[in-house]
Amino acid sequence: MPGLSKNSARLRDQERARLIWLMTTDKALTSSLLGKLTLAEQYDVGTLADDIAEVGALVAHLPPPDLADTLEALPSEERHALWRLVQDHERGQVLLEASENVWEDLIDEMSDHDILDALRTLDIDEQIYLVQHLPRNLTGRLLASLPAGERARVRQVMHYEKNRVGAIMEFGVIMVRPDVTLGTVQRYLRRLGKMPENTDKLFVTSRDKILLGELELKTILLNSAQRRVSEVMETQPMIFSPEDDAEKAARTFERDNLISAAVVDSVGKLMGRLTIDEIVDVVYEETDNDMRALGGLSAEEDVYAPVSKAVKTRWAWLAINLCTAFIASRVIDGFEHTISQLVALASLMPIVAGIGGNTGNQTITMIVRALALQHIQPGNFTFLIMRELGVALVNGLVWGGIMGGVTWWLYDDMALGGVMTLAMVLNLLVAAMMGVIIPMGMIRFGRDPAVGSSVLITAITDTGGFFIFLGLATVFLL
Amino acid sequence: MPGLSKNSARLRDQERARLIWLMTTDKALTSSLLGKLTLAEQYDVGTLADDIAEVGALVAHLPPPDLADTLEALPSEERHALWRLVQDHERGQVLLEASENVWEDLIDEMSDHDILDALRTLDIDEQIYLVQHLPRNLTGRLLASLPAGERARVRQVMHYEKNRVGAIMEFGVIMVRPDVTLGTVQRYLRRLGKMPENTDKLFVTSRDKILLGELELKTILLNSAQRRVSEVMETQPMIFSPEDDAEKAARTFERDNLISAAVVDSVGKLMGRLTIDEIVDVVYEETDNDMRALGGLSAEEDVYAPVSKAVKTRWAWLAINLCTAFIASRVIDGFEHTISQLVALASLMPIVAGIGGNTGNQTITMIVRALALQHIQPGNFTFLIMRELGVALVNGLVWGGIMGGVTWWLYDDMALGGVMTLAMVLNLLVAAMMGVIIPMGMIRFGRDPAVGSSVLITAITDTGGFFIFLGLATVFLL
Repeated sequence: MPGLSKNSARLRDQERARLIWLMTTDKALTSSLLGKLTLAEQYDVGTLADDIAEVGALVAHLPPPDLADTLEALPSEERHALWRLVQDHERGQVLLEASENVWEDLIDEMSDHDILDALRTLDIDEQIYLVQHLPRNLTGRLLASLPAGERARVRQVMHYEKNRVGAIMEFGVIMVRPDVTLGTVQRYLRRLGKMPENTDKLFVTSRDKILLGELELKTILLNSAQRRVSEVMETQPMIFSPEDDAEKAARTFERDNLISAAVVDSVGKLMGRLTIDEIVDVVYEETDNDMRALGGLSAEEDVYAPVSKAVKTRWAWLAINLCTAFIASRVIDGFEHTISQLVALASLMPIVAGIGGNTGNQTITMIVRALALQHIQPGNFTFLIMRELGVALVNGLVWGGIMGGVTWWLYDDMALGGVMTLAMVLNLLVAAMMGVIIPMGMIRFGRDPAVGSSVLITAITDTGGFFIFLGLATVFLL
Repeated sequence: MPGLSKNSARLRDQERARLIWLMTTDKALTSSLLGKLTLAEQYDVGTLADDIAEVGALVAHLPPPDLADTLEALPSEERHALWRLVQDHERGQVLLEASENVWEDLIDEMSDHDILDALRTLDIDEQIYLVQHLPRNLTGRLLASLPAGERARVRQVMHYEKNRVGAIMEFGVIMVRPDVTLGTVQRYLRRLGKMPENTDKLFVTSRDKILLGELELKTILLNSAQRRVSEVMETQPMIFSPEDDAEKAARTFERDNLISAAVVDSVGKLMGRLTIDEIVDVVYEETDNDMRALGGLSAEEDVYAPVSKAVKTRWAWLAINLCTAFIASRVIDGFEHTISQLVALASLMPIVAGIGGNTGNQTITMIVRALALQHIQPGNFTFLIMRELGVALVNGLVWGGIMGGVTWWLYDDMALGGVMTLAMVLNLLVAAMMGVIIPMGMIRFGRDPAVGSSVLITAITDTGGFFIFLGLATVFLL
């Protein structure tokens, strides 16, 4: 008997790659899809018909999540062209799976009416999610088209901030009573005929929706139909509050290997549930944002954003960087007299500054990661500072010593070598200390420690490095 | 009826934080647990008895995953002290949940015998995982203690590289035949009495284990007991090969919202399954490694590693950084004559270098992220280069223009301002081009684009910046 092979992960990866390749290598294809080629021109391009047929077949075959990924991997024009091929009834699902960066591109050709039509193919939780985040303000119109009960729910979710559990919870839950038998539960489920996605458990509640326990699907299957729900339910499940931090909830999901979990209000009433697929998204987004922030990028820029948008999203960091570089330059300028006496200082000073920036960024990366992983508590502050100072001292003495020796040998000037060593040790100590203080201070003031830390530490180690080195040179060498 | 409140995520977070706080603020507590205090000394510390009692109660109450997280958040000595309080029968589970960084600390006081005892409380998949990764080589001894069938399995898993699906797959699967009824399946499950964790589906196989389809637990519950498995099973499930890349598999899990998926060999025979909890670990680890690599940190260093270990894991990056800084310094040295004529150049040159490094790192961060998200295909290379060059040109003209104006005004020297502008534009173009070429080239040569990219781009923009700026100054200003 032949096994399955039609749907392997690798095959789908290949199909996506092929689609992207076709879209990005055949310029005529994109133009044709966007209606920019006349019939005569289309005739002239030999492989065009074949490519159009293959692209059409791939789009028809690939499921919405793969189409969303493909759209994300295309430049703007090709993205528009491919979007036109996505069928109406799949568009809602594709929008849902695509990341926020590409939404603007996808919906800018659609009328509000088209968008609302696309949304209607989704279930209520998905509609809420999209309407909340889509760039155009469609909330009012969608709200008007909903029944009163759903409207109240949408309002409830929208009231939570984006990084709270309340904003990512789902309403699709199945509730059962504690006093019925598992057989009754199973009959009830068959009557329902379907379950929300990622349902691994049902919620056991009282008449007024107070959560009493959880009933896993596997518990229903493993136990006799005569047993009562209250006898086999889990009475100490992990529960969340809508005000809980979403990233912390993700940690708890990872820690406890959860698939779904209840969200309850302050009196214990079941409001909805968190599911692993939202959690996985939170994890990807969290780490993505941290990395972008440390690299000086905004969260909005994607790799295919047009030049104008990229310039706009990056200019702030560049301006800040330029200001700090300018300050460092003014520090050097203050020592113009020293440098004119001993030009070698000009070539040595970037070493002191560079090594400090490198060490500072190592420390910051480590602290930002440890903060994200909840490995740092206020009580550890002193320990961390002392540890980083220790590492910096050892590295400073070793590498500063080597560099001092090399300087002595190159310029045949022992005092210059000594200044080099001393400056490197001091700047590494500054870098280590600030590498701990900056992110911890940002946390203390309620800010994201990843944003701006890297720019700040580089500014300090540059300015500090130049000041320390040239200052020591002025004192000891002139 | 009162709701549940004993097990909220927030409460557990608080308990962990409290435990860490107690361990890190009361030095006497750690010493006492490690047996370093005499009875008389213990008597002298007023709150010691209370703290010991509270720590004991928290350790007894917190489940293994929380204990593992707490251990990760403690310095080495406190880690040892707390580990002594963890009960024998929980040690295996705690080891399993703890990250690789802390294993060495935890097992260095345990004999091989103790470790094997701790492992025996785990199921076979968990034992394999730990034995594969624990720093001490216990593999041979564990293998000897296993029945022959399991031994073959362990050998099979260990044969795959760490980043392959084969290395993270589990063997615990439930198989059913296609021709039985759902009622029969349910009776079979009741007889089994339990399911492996994260079981959301059963695997439908032929007699020789060829995968024919998948049967979700919810399908069993939603359909009548008389239906046959073959009528209701999913015949096009997503399947993986043991050779597939684990990070790509994680993307597929996220894309398709999977909880578990089959791993089959080349002829379609079921080998095991991937589960979402392993996948979530892969996601955390992947992004963690990328961030550490971009920040110049090795994967092994945790925030509580002792100074000696931190020095060892960081020295390579520092050495490389020092070498590149040294080369840049030699470039400046080559223009000593130019600088001695016009000392202002010494204070302006770090601006040119710094702005290039900043831009280059922005580009690299974006490309590394896009590569991880599979948003870049070979076909897009030209597009990306052109786009980054465009961004660099605009930024170079705007900010280089501003900086040139400021220079002109400061030094009352129009030619110097012109050189400044030109140098900034050129260095930004170099940064943008290399920011694309470096990570793409690393991928081409099968290397991780996150490792070393940042150091390399900084080296190029520093050296390049100094060379361009001082070179232009030599040509136009002397």
